[in-house]
Amino acid sequence: MEKPKKYAVFGSGSWATAIVKMLCENLDEVGWYMRSVYIKEHLLKEDHNPSYLSSVEFKTKQLKLSNDINEMADYADVLIFVVPSAFMHSELQKLSADISNKIIVSAVKGIIPESGLLVGEHFHDIYKIPFENIAVIAGPCHAEEVALERLSYLTISCADEEKAQAIADSLSSWYINTKTSDDVIGVEYAVMLKNIYAIAAGIAHGLGYGDNFQSVLMSNAIREMRRFIKKMHKMKRNINDSAYLGDLLVTGYSVFSRNRMFGNMIGKGYTVKSAQMEMSMIAEGYYATKSAFILNTNNKKKTRLPIINAVYEILYENKNPKKVFKKLTDKLD
Amino acid sequence: MEKPKKYAVFGSGSWATAIVKMLCENLDEVGWYMRSVYIKEHLLKEDHNPSYLSSVEFKTKQLKLSNDINEMADYADVLIFVVPSAFMHSELQKLSADISNKIIVSAVKGIIPESGLLVGEHFHDIYKIPFENIAVIAGPCHAEEVALERLSYLTISCADEEKAQAIADSLSSWYINTKTSDDVIGVEYAVMLKNIYAIAAGIAHGLGYGDNFQSVLMSNAIREMRRFIKKMHKMKRNINDSAYLGDLLVTGYSVFSRNRMFGNMIGKGYTVKSAQMEMSMIAEGYYATKSAFILNTNNKKKTRLPIINAVYEILYENKNPKKVFKKLTDKLD
Repeated sequence: MEKPKKYAVFGSGSWATAIVKMLCENLDEVGWYMRSVYIKEHLLKEDHNPSYLSSVEFKTKQLKLSNDINEMADYADVLIFVVPSAFMHSELQKLSADISNKIIVSAVKGIIPESGLLVGEHFHDIYKIPFENIAVIAGPCHAEEVALERLSYLTISCADEEKAQAIADSLSSWYINTKTSDDVIGVEYAVMLKNIYAIAAGIAHGLGYGDNFQSVLMSNAIREMRRFIKKMHKMKRNINDSAYLGDLLVTGYSVFSRNRMFGNMIGKGYTVKSAQMEMSMIAEGYYATKSAFILNTNNKKKTRLPIINAVYEILYENKNPKKVFKKLTDKLD
Repeated sequence: MEKPKKYAVFGSGSWATAIVKMLCENLDEVGWYMRSVYIKEHLLKEDHNPSYLSSVEFKTKQLKLSNDINEMADYADVLIFVVPSAFMHSELQKLSADISNKIIVSAVKGIIPESGLLVGEHFHDIYKIPFENIAVIAGPCHAEEVALERLSYLTISCADEEKAQAIADSLSSWYINTKTSDDVIGVEYAVMLKNIYAIAAGIAHGLGYGDNFQSVLMSNAIREMRRFIKKMHKMKRNINDSAYLGDLLVTGYSVFSRNRMFGNMIGKGYTVKSAQMEMSMIAEGYYATKSAFILNTNNKKKTRLPIINAVYEILYENKNPKKVFKKLTDKLD
């Protein structure tokens, strides 16, 4: 395999900005597509993203910025998508460039609502990208700590080990340790599911449950995640690896997690609508809850998902969080 | 089996006080032995333990208090030991009562330094207590949250399922959920090891590592714990159950954990001695680190313990925490 040379990041949120920063440690040029003309102009003038991780200063000579998704798709060998899953469909509708020979990397945290598919599956099914050209970036990694250059670990999953390693190399630096894995599907599900468990952790906190319960919730969550992923894609994996358990913990235990914050508001009595308005954004886990619920319902090999079902009842069936969690506590151990 | 009726708790720290409180929810009378005459007198006069969980009010009519370990050992069918492991030996030297027919329950968090044995093994070897009469109480459970009557889960392990259930019943209440297990040895090791990992988490925090690293550390810790326990006592267990992973998380993530606090001071540059003096107590994990290190060194079936070894080097070989952790980060993934 010839080593891919040109990387481009699609998206301008905090995680996208963090990934551009990591790539800038290794590459002479990094492509960066964003929808917003304002963000692009601001970056060129002020050397930082005005909306996210604004403490990170870029050398703009190193950046190839564009508001044209097709220009950027043409430019790069490796296309890293870091768009909220809810916006992937509308972004991709603009895409007319031929990407059949590109390496597609997902740093999206969830399922594309319109297709009900994981991002990798979506590119495989709709764009006919072979699975060996599809990769996933997983944490545990808060973008904010990348901005601070605090030691973080990433897992890059790809069926093609050589490609996983090449992408890992482009992201590694003195503050980023990487490992590779071949469990693309399992890691993508884990990235999605952790946000549901972070919402659950937030609800519990909002309802007044303490640290003792939180640890029981996380211990049940990782077992539930293992069951779910096993039903979806059976293969040998250690669910306690960083990409699964580590990512769950950093999200579930962090007071900075937007999903946990969203859950916390629900637990404190906000309605779903008002919590979403108050946060002026929609937590990824909101969509993930519905996706996971439907995937399990439609699966012939259903599994027991007490936590996901509880969050689903609260978010989508308007059930009383206090009562739902009271019932949930009897199902945990 | 006749259901045991008389329970006594040995010890007067926060965990002992919490266990007495739990028993008081179910039993007409609870025995409580403590070394300190002052604490006993204070309890009788003021209805609370002056030194620990002093917000918990007892009905003293319900308590059978004693400063005489033999009186209490004679009284009870079930003897629950909740003494720091470092003081177990000196306490037990006072014990002359015949305890051969008693049920012995350990809520001690570590190995008895003088014998190098787990508390259960110690009672089996020295007092000839059969294993079916030995049980262990494990969390995840901060005593402080029991005082606040926040929902908590306990695991009671005993080779004899009926006895495990009887003890569990005596501890269950509207805020305490219990489960039973037959993995006495594995759970005792887990209770001990978690304190070492809490010290490691504290050191990392003191050195300035962030949440991303902390989650990687915990994800590696649970895998290391699994390897260690498997070498010591191979049996079928799910390391992600509350008694293992849950207890690790509540200790490793809590800012109230004394072991984490101790580690944090070491990470910030205190010497071991000055950290211990500053805390006016010795964290259980300090002893556990040495015990675990020696157990693995002496075991024919050694296993890889990068985290425990790192903590050992810092606490017992006076190595530089910053350098040791730098090296450790390359061994984690």
